[in-house]
Amino acid sequence: MARYQVILAYDGTEFRGFQRQTKARTVQGVVENALRELNWQGKSLLAAGRTDTGVHASGQVIAFDLDWSHSSEDLCHALNTLLPGDVAAREARPVRVDFHPRYEAVSRCYHYRLFCDAIRDPLRERFDWRVWPPVDAGAMREASSLLLGQHDFVAFGTPPRPEGSTIRTVNKAEWVKEGSILVFEVVADAFLYHMVRRMVALLVRIGRADLRPEDILDFLPQPIAGERREPPLVMGLAPAQGLILREVRYE
Amino acid sequence: MARYQVILAYDGTEFRGFQRQTKARTVQGVVENALRELNWQGKSLLAAGRTDTGVHASGQVIAFDLDWSHSSEDLCHALNTLLPGDVAAREARPVRVDFHPRYEAVSRCYHYRLFCDAIRDPLRERFDWRVWPPVDAGAMREASSLLLGQHDFVAFGTPPRPEGSTIRTVNKAEWVKEGSILVFEVVADAFLYHMVRRMVALLVRIGRADLRPEDILDFLPQPIAGERREPPLVMGLAPAQGLILREVRYE
Repeated sequence: MARYQVILAYDGTEFRGFQRQTKARTVQGVVENALRELNWQGKSLLAAGRTDTGVHASGQVIAFDLDWSHSSEDLCHALNTLLPGDVAAREARPVRVDFHPRYEAVSRCYHYRLFCDAIRDPLRERFDWRVWPPVDAGAMREASSLLLGQHDFVAFGTPPRPEGSTIRTVNKAEWVKEGSILVFEVVADAFLYHMVRRMVALLVRIGRADLRPEDILDFLPQPIAGERREPPLVMGLAPAQGLILREVRYE
Repeated sequence: MARYQVILAYDGTEFRGFQRQTKARTVQGVVENALRELNWQGKSLLAAGRTDTGVHASGQVIAFDLDWSHSSEDLCHALNTLLPGDVAAREARPVRVDFHPRYEAVSRCYHYRLFCDAIRDPLRERFDWRVWPPVDAGAMREASSLLLGQHDFVAFGTPPRPEGSTIRTVNKAEWVKEGSILVFEVVADAFLYHMVRRMVALLVRIGRADLRPEDILDFLPQPIAGERREPPLVMGLAPAQGLILREVRYE
C-alpha cells in the first residue's frame, strides 16, 4: 500500500462540481469509481480543493492510498482507460504516506477567461465568459494590482470553515491578452469560496466603468485605529465556465 | 420576401453533421426549426458546404428567403434566441434573390488542429486531435507546400457528384504553431469529400517519418506522355473533431 498523488484535468461542464454527491455526477464520484476498479479500498480521496459546478481544472491535485504493483505511469494510463472522456489523470506519482493535497498546498493558481463579443460563439462559451460591450483592460489591470498582498478578503467570499480566517495573500493578479481573449491569472496562498468569481465580477464592473479602479479598496477593509470596518459582500459572480484551476503548488 | 445570407458557427460535437436527416440532430435541422419559428416557408436552406459529423464551423454560410420586416441585426439576434447553445448566427445580411452560397463561393478555408501529448486532455480533445509521439512540423510543412497549386486530388477524396472533376486548386497549406498546438490552415477553391482529413492523416504519417515529405507526390497524379496514372486513395482519416470550417469567400 502506498499513497499516490495524481494531477487531474477535467471539463467541468457535465459535472455537478468536484465533491461527491449521492445523486449527481461529480468529479470525485467518477474518479472514485475508477479507483474502485483498481481495487481501491478507501472511503474518500483527498483533494487540493473543491471546484464548483461548471468550473474546469487542468491542475487539480488528489491523493489516495492504493495497493499497486506497477509503475506510476501505468497507474496514470490505467486510470485514463477507466475514466470518462471529460476527466483525465495527467500525472501520477508516489508521495509520503501522510501527504495531504489541501493542507500542504502553499499556493493555488486559477485562470479566468473572458472574451468580448456582441454575439454568442458556440466554439468559445464552454470555457470563456462572453462580455459585451468591450471592457477596459487597463482599468482592470490597475484595480487588480490593488489586490496584491495580504488582505482581508471577507468581501469576496466565505472561508471553508465557518468563523475561519478570511485573510489571504494574493501573489499575482494579472490580465493577459491572448488574441481576443482576456485571461485573468490569479495566484494566492488559498482562496475563499467563490473568491475568484467575485473578483472577476467586480473587475468587469470596473472594466465597464461602473466603478473606478480605486473603488476596489472599498472591498478591502483597512483597520482604522484598531477598528475593523466590515465591507459589503461583492455582489454577483462571474459565470463558472470561465474559471479553471490551473495549478496547486507544494513546498 | 428577401434572401438573407447568414454566417453560422457551431460546435459539431453533438450534431450528426450539417445535412438534415429525419431521425438525427443536424445543424441544418435545428437552423430550419429556428427559421420556421420566424415563419419561414421554405423547404430547404442553402449552404456553402456540408460538414461531417463532429466537424465544427466558425464561418459556414447559409442562405434562405424570408419575409422579415426588421433589420438584419434583429434577424441575427432573433435566430440566436431560438437556436440551441451549440450553434449561433454570427452575422446576417440581405443578398441578391438568386445568391447561392455553394455555387458562388470562390474559396474555402479550413483549419485542422493537432496537439502532441502522451496523455489525453479533456480541455482540448473537443476541438483538437491529440497525436503522440510528437510529429516533425518541418517535414509536414515541406510536404504541405507540395500540395499548393492545381492538382488532381482524386487520392484525397470523392467529388460531390459521381464522375465530377477531382481537380482542385490549393492556395494555402500551412502549419502554424500556437503554443503546443499545430494548426493546419488550408485554402482551396473547393474541397472533395473528406479531402482535408485525408491530407492531415497523410501529413501526420510524414510528420512521424513513416513517409518522406516528397512521397506526397505519389498521391498527386502527373500525366506522363498523356497517360493518367491513378494513385491509390489515401488511407485513414484524421478525426473529425480537429476540423473547422473557418471561412467561405465570394467575389
